[in-house]
Amino acid sequence: MNETDRERMNTAVREAEIAAAEGEIPVGAALYRGGTLLWADHNRREQRHDPTAHAELLCMRHGAEQKGDWRLNDCTLYVTLEPCPMCAGAMVMSRVGRCVFGAADPEKGCCGSIYDLPADPALHSTTKWEQDPDSEAYAARLSAWFREKQRK
Amino acid sequence: MNETDRERMNTAVREAEIAAAEGEIPVGAALYRGGTLLWADHNRREQRHDPTAHAELLCMRHGAEQKGDWRLNDCTLYVTLEPCPMCAGAMVMSRVGRCVFGAADPEKGCCGSIYDLPADPALHSTTKWEQDPDSEAYAARLSAWFREKQRK
Repeated sequence: MNETDRERMNTAVREAEIAAAEGEIPVGAALYRGGTLLWADHNRREQRHDPTAHAELLCMRHGAEQKGDWRLNDCTLYVTLEPCPMCAGAMVMSRVGRCVFGAADPEKGCCGSIYDLPADPALHSTTKWEQDPDSEAYAARLSAWFREKQRK
Repeated sequence: MNETDRERMNTAVREAEIAAAEGEIPVGAALYRGGTLLWADHNRREQRHDPTAHAELLCMRHGAEQKGDWRLNDCTLYVTLEPCPMCAGAMVMSRVGRCVFGAADPEKGCCGSIYDLPADPALHSTTKWEQDPDSEAYAARLSAWFREKQRK
């Protein structure tokens, strides 16, 4: 994590804030290739009635379309929450080079919590991930959102 | 596997044939809710430059939009090849009730081959899967396609 990573994580955080305003579980993501932002997006599952409309999956889908190649080996995916099995699986299948995530997800996380799909040699994965050292800040924002939602 | 399952697998097989004609790895899928076909689709990864455009994922995305609910617990997904980590993960996350697949995938399969994501209680999965007893026919069609491609 350097200063550039920090700025890019802030892009993902701003997307999460948009998701919260839209009544979605607030998760945001951003996909960069070198210095270029290919796509930033947020969870849109409820509004689109689409179980695949997680922030990361939307970034991989539309970012790859932008790149003109489904192979994302030269890209870094920033996301505020540890990827679920679908999104960690998509990282492996699209060969995302690197992933930086915020809060751990003990319920569904597949970058170290329940599985570590990107690290599994059986899947011939080339994806590396790391967790933002400020992970508690991401977890606190998520918890605050769930508390607020319960009060409504 | 009853006669209805067999007919529905044929819908998936026809989609795989369209994928082959389009130069894609020939995988097809169909999502049914009760007697209704919600969506049938095939692999479109190369033509769309989209790593998420697997047959199953497209069926879950568009099928859920048709249903108006991202929860697919009352749906059955038919697919000619064992789902990859992304697609098996999407089945878990969208709570697909049942999946029937054709050929096993020893390279990437996550319904029994490398992982069994839908069976994992740690993911709180409610998805059941079964393999078509005629799995060799699906595997033979895939092998024939790869042999043909190598000759070109």
